[in-house]
Amino acid sequence: MKEETSPSQAVRIVTERELRSCVDLDTTAFGVVEQAFTWLAETPVEMPPIQHLSITERGEALGDVDIKSAFVPGIDLFAVKIASGFASNLALGLPSGNGLMVLLDSRTGQCRAVLLDNGYLTDLRTALAGAVAAKHLAPAHVETVGVLGTGRQAELQARALLLARPYSKLLICGRTRSRAETLASLLAPKLEGVAIEVVAEAREVVERSQCVVTTTAAREPLVFADWLHPGLHLTAMGSDVPGKQELDPEVLLRADLCVVDRRSQSERLGELQHVEPALRASLTVLELGSLTSGRHPGRTEPGAITVCDLTGTGVQDTAIAVHALHKTQAAGRGSEIELG
Amino acid sequence: MKEETSPSQAVRIVTERELRSCVDLDTTAFGVVEQAFTWLAETPVEMPPIQHLSITERGEALGDVDIKSAFVPGIDLFAVKIASGFASNLALGLPSGNGLMVLLDSRTGQCRAVLLDNGYLTDLRTALAGAVAAKHLAPAHVETVGVLGTGRQAELQARALLLARPYSKLLICGRTRSRAETLASLLAPKLEGVAIEVVAEAREVVERSQCVVTTTAAREPLVFADWLHPGLHLTAMGSDVPGKQELDPEVLLRADLCVVDRRSQSERLGELQHVEPALRASLTVLELGSLTSGRHPGRTEPGAITVCDLTGTGVQDTAIAVHALHKTQAAGRGSEIELG
Repeated sequence: MKEETSPSQAVRIVTERELRSCVDLDTTAFGVVEQAFTWLAETPVEMPPIQHLSITERGEALGDVDIKSAFVPGIDLFAVKIASGFASNLALGLPSGNGLMVLLDSRTGQCRAVLLDNGYLTDLRTALAGAVAAKHLAPAHVETVGVLGTGRQAELQARALLLARPYSKLLICGRTRSRAETLASLLAPKLEGVAIEVVAEAREVVERSQCVVTTTAAREPLVFADWLHPGLHLTAMGSDVPGKQELDPEVLLRADLCVVDRRSQSERLGELQHVEPALRASLTVLELGSLTSGRHPGRTEPGAITVCDLTGTGVQDTAIAVHALHKTQAAGRGSEIELG
Repeated sequence: MKEETSPSQAVRIVTERELRSCVDLDTTAFGVVEQAFTWLAETPVEMPPIQHLSITERGEALGDVDIKSAFVPGIDLFAVKIASGFASNLALGLPSGNGLMVLLDSRTGQCRAVLLDNGYLTDLRTALAGAVAAKHLAPAHVETVGVLGTGRQAELQARALLLARPYSKLLICGRTRSRAETLASLLAPKLEGVAIEVVAEAREVVERSQCVVTTTAAREPLVFADWLHPGLHLTAMGSDVPGKQELDPEVLLRADLCVVDRRSQSERLGELQHVEPALRASLTVLELGSLTSGRHPGRTEPGAITVCDLTGTGVQDTAIAVHALHKTQAAGRGSEIELG
């Protein structure tokens, strides 16, 4: 059957190393992720439910795989992202998260690129989404940022937030103090002009900050409503599967403005899953895209309390993947595989 | 962020041309696909619902993308398949079907291989599934095979069936006679010792054959119950989305044995979608895996009428992808991309 090979077609293969060399947290990438929220709100995006695989062997849970995709009318390419998380990898000296993004041609369905990013692009777009939320929801002047959580996303959120607010003080809080200290050391050379302090109590972080990001794998509330104060913005990044939770439901009910990336996802996977259905129905919830598009002004009162819950969407993946492909092409990175 | 690249890892990239050079319709591949049906029936396979994207631009339907995946306990790798179908490609001189398969490591979730097969492996496993159905359901002696449909799958089914039954006569019927004649010419050199005849009426094909395969994109019945005769096996390959249909529902009700690959899929995407729910509940339907595993004997009476509806499963994709990777590795084909 050798004679039936399809007509000539090239696929660009880009490795994590190549992506890291030319795609980073910068204002261009910020704009790309911000635009993606507008796409999600304003265009008839095709974004099917996440495909999920639970990988178990002899009754033992090994890991999970999530597949996200989104087609945006008018954009030449669309991404399918395969993201895996295997906690047991850490014992093998491997990162728990892995995966890749595949870019398909919107006009022909042909494969144009495979970005072997091992989750790097997801990390970036997730951090940038937090910064986009802060741009539209945090007070105009943020002196102190608080981060609850000490993982890679905690680091990236702290860095990305500088694209939205030039803050000068960072408070870090984690369950394990030594991890919080390690993160502080890691961040010190990367956050010029920012004083970094490790704080033992989450409550103190919230009370002293104008902008707080929670980025943990928590399955019970870390933040409570009586900690909130006027002029606070709070973004919850952690919850992205049923059962995860970072905010007491009262936090959402108490906020002056409650924003999510995608309401249906937040109700299934994010913080809204923990709000009683009766209360949920009465809650005014905006999608972030209505703020990035300008349809809703976002924060208008300096003293408002705002909350944003982000679960992550396929549209962000398509946006960052297309951006990354353009950047690597411009830099001459990646390998072309000729088909046919 | 260049310093954080993940530990060393290699990904094998294999093109359609390389796959075609070393993976074909043979007894080994037949055994692999047969085994996959047994896996589906006998092991706690993780096979999520198909993720589907409809690609439309300014109200015009351009194409569809289906994403299938399946993890089989005990198998080192599992596949995620991205398959696109864009009918408008034909006008561009491109095949309508494209896509790729990604193989992930079952223990770590890391990407091990990307098979840029453009649908070639799907074509093979689909054809082999028809042959597996024939092995367990067709009469022991098949002299005449009938094929309704004239596309690539019609060709492959005719070839693959020789792995299950050494038939000597092939009847081909299509809506467009010239296409049926083109297929006959294409097949003549590939089917040694088989007399090929183009037949105008589907009814005649069914009446003269002991084994019939329908492989069309029909949306209304092509085969009716009063055409059936003792000693006939009929496999319907075509219907794989809501709305497609090749068999009058009465065909399924009249059969002595009604077999599907996955009942839930056949009810949603295959021929069972057109059987009234009340009748469907009373219909005895077996899954092909219970025949390949030996739990059910398949055809026992030479004079029985048997029907099999195949919609295609992620387990078959995992099976053929793992097989293809092993074959290409053994043949030294494909490129290794070093990550990290």
